Amino acid sequence: MYLIGIDVGGMSIKGGIVSSEGQIIYKTTVPTAEKYTADYSISEDIRKVIDALLDGAKISVKEIKGVGIGQPGSIDSKRGVIRYSNNIALENVPVVDELKKYYDLPIFINNDANCAALGEYVFGAGKGFNDIVFVTLGTGVGTGFIIDGKLFEGRECAGTEGGHMQIDISDSAQACSCGRKGCWEAYASATALMRQTKAAMNKYPDSLMHKLAEEEGKVSGKTAFEAAKKGDAAGQKVVDTYISYITSGLINLTNIFCPDAILIGGGISNEKEYLTDPIQKAINEERFGAAFNPYVEIKTASLKNDAGILGAAALAL
Amino acid sequence: MYLIGIDVGGMSIKGGIVSSEGQIIYKTTVPTAEKYTADYSISEDIRKVIDALLDGAKISVKEIKGVGIGQPGSIDSKRGVIRYSNNIALENVPVVDELKKYYDLPIFINNDANCAALGEYVFGAGKGFNDIVFVTLGTGVGTGFIIDGKLFEGRECAGTEGGHMQIDISDSAQACSCGRKGCWEAYASATALMRQTKAAMNKYPDSLMHKLAEEEGKVSGKTAFEAAKKGDAAGQKVVDTYISYITSGLINLTNIFCPDAILIGGGISNEKEYLTDPIQKAINEERFGAAFNPYVEIKTASLKNDAGILGAAALAL
Repeated sequence: MYLIGIDVGGMSIKGGIVSSEGQIIYKTTVPTAEKYTADYSISEDIRKVIDALLDGAKISVKEIKGVGIGQPGSIDSKRGVIRYSNNIALENVPVVDELKKYYDLPIFINNDANCAALGEYVFGAGKGFNDIVFVTLGTGVGTGFIIDGKLFEGRECAGTEGGHMQIDISDSAQACSCGRKGCWEAYASATALMRQTKAAMNKYPDSLMHKLAEEEGKVSGKTAFEAAKKGDAAGQKVVDTYISYITSGLINLTNIFCPDAILIGGGISNEKEYLTDPIQKAINEERFGAAFNPYVEIKTASLKNDAGILGAAALAL
Repeated sequence: MYLIGIDVGGMSIKGGIVSSEGQIIYKTTVPTAEKYTADYSISEDIRKVIDALLDGAKISVKEIKGVGIGQPGSIDSKRGVIRYSNNIALENVPVVDELKKYYDLPIFINNDANCAALGEYVFGAGKGFNDIVFVTLGTGVGTGFIIDGKLFEGRECAGTEGGHMQIDISDSAQACSCGRKGCWEAYASATALMRQTKAAMNKYPDSLMHKLAEEEGKVSGKTAFEAAKKGDAAGQKVVDTYISYITSGLINLTNIFCPDAILIGGGISNEKEYLTDPIQKAINEERFGAAFNPYVEIKTASLKNDAGILGAAALAL
């Protein structure tokens, strides 16, 4: 038996046929439409992906155990409805009901960060842990929580927005896309790191970051890290401050959940030990009751580019 | 059948015989010793309370369904051990095993804020709600969480320290007793409110707060609230800022848990609507996905002075 995992993104809808051990045996992609309407639901494009997967892999519906869909935004996973998504403008779309008209299969949908957390737990770096805080450092900061072996979604699946935890109440706090000020996401996302890198470059015209950004053709999430690795003091300062922001939110979540493991995903997680080592040290020393409370392991998430498909597939397990 | 609830505090150990409907039918108190040692465990004093309750109420052990103990600090509720308490200096005390030598009864121990959350859920303002964030604004800020009708304790019962969520990463952040800087507790506790009140009094020598503090003989958690109610601008400013601190942490927890209800307990909660109305407004407007996520109700906790005994008793239900 196989699973189908669908990873809905702003640019494309990716899909994969996945074995129950987490091997992707066939993949395909359909571009995300510029606009979905009452007449042209996103379910239509998801259907295209499912059909292309079954055709391409020459697998019949009977061999499929279920379909999982990972979708950015606020998802009512119990009713199978996209409550709201702002990246891809969607409101109250009953995706599961729409797809059930075409497939006699169990179909599930959940928030993409929740899927990624579940995927790491089932197939990735979270295997063997029972209580996981997953964080993805990308355009925003997404969080997902496994509590006692189960995905935690908050009441009516409306929680787990750890990225929108205020860590800066000062008057000069950074504005967040959610309307609040000082959210963790506005400090610890890749977007925030690029903003912090640019600010430091303006302040330090002699920093190596200028040369590295020129070589790459842009300021990226790697600029400050690369500069720091080459001994650039201004780059190191950006990295240290950025890591202290990540750590602030992770200690908060540790004090609330006390997970076995914190898994860090998203583009920035490619920095691996360069990121996890100082975070591990800070968690060891600064979490509440550090002297007597159980150890919390910091790890890089392992599913990388396939995290979306595998996480969605894990919903159907 | 009756329950026994034991509320361990820095000054006294209070106990009550409680009906299964949450009526306290008999109460007693034993002073907390200045120091407990290997030879003189806190279990000895808890035993004194239990025996005095049974004697005083003329109830036999056979009529008791179980004993619950609420204790400040980090508690391993599964093993029945006080891991660590700094208020009453204790480390690794196997209270439940020690007491089981004397009573053939189910005996439970848990953190006092967890007990208070459970007590409100079972007997108090939390009745009828399934997902509750409970916060107590006292010397510190304690939190307790009911998820889907069950007390959530974090892995190995080492979580739910929401008061130690950093909300201020600025260089001028307030130091917290836990060793970190900028914790919610350092801004939203009654202790913090008194500090904020004193600072405002220094800044505004004409404020009504001076007269009120003189009448009361001290600056208390009521000083600024009373002044604000009488139209004092400086008092109002203290109150508004203090409420914004409370709200910061509560929105963070709402974005993570999306509870049905947030219950506010502790001394400051005596301000009732004066506190809950502005918090309700802020939660309605500022929580993540306010336009489409479910409503979160803000209420004053209702168990008041008996919260400790009733919450502990609820453990044994």
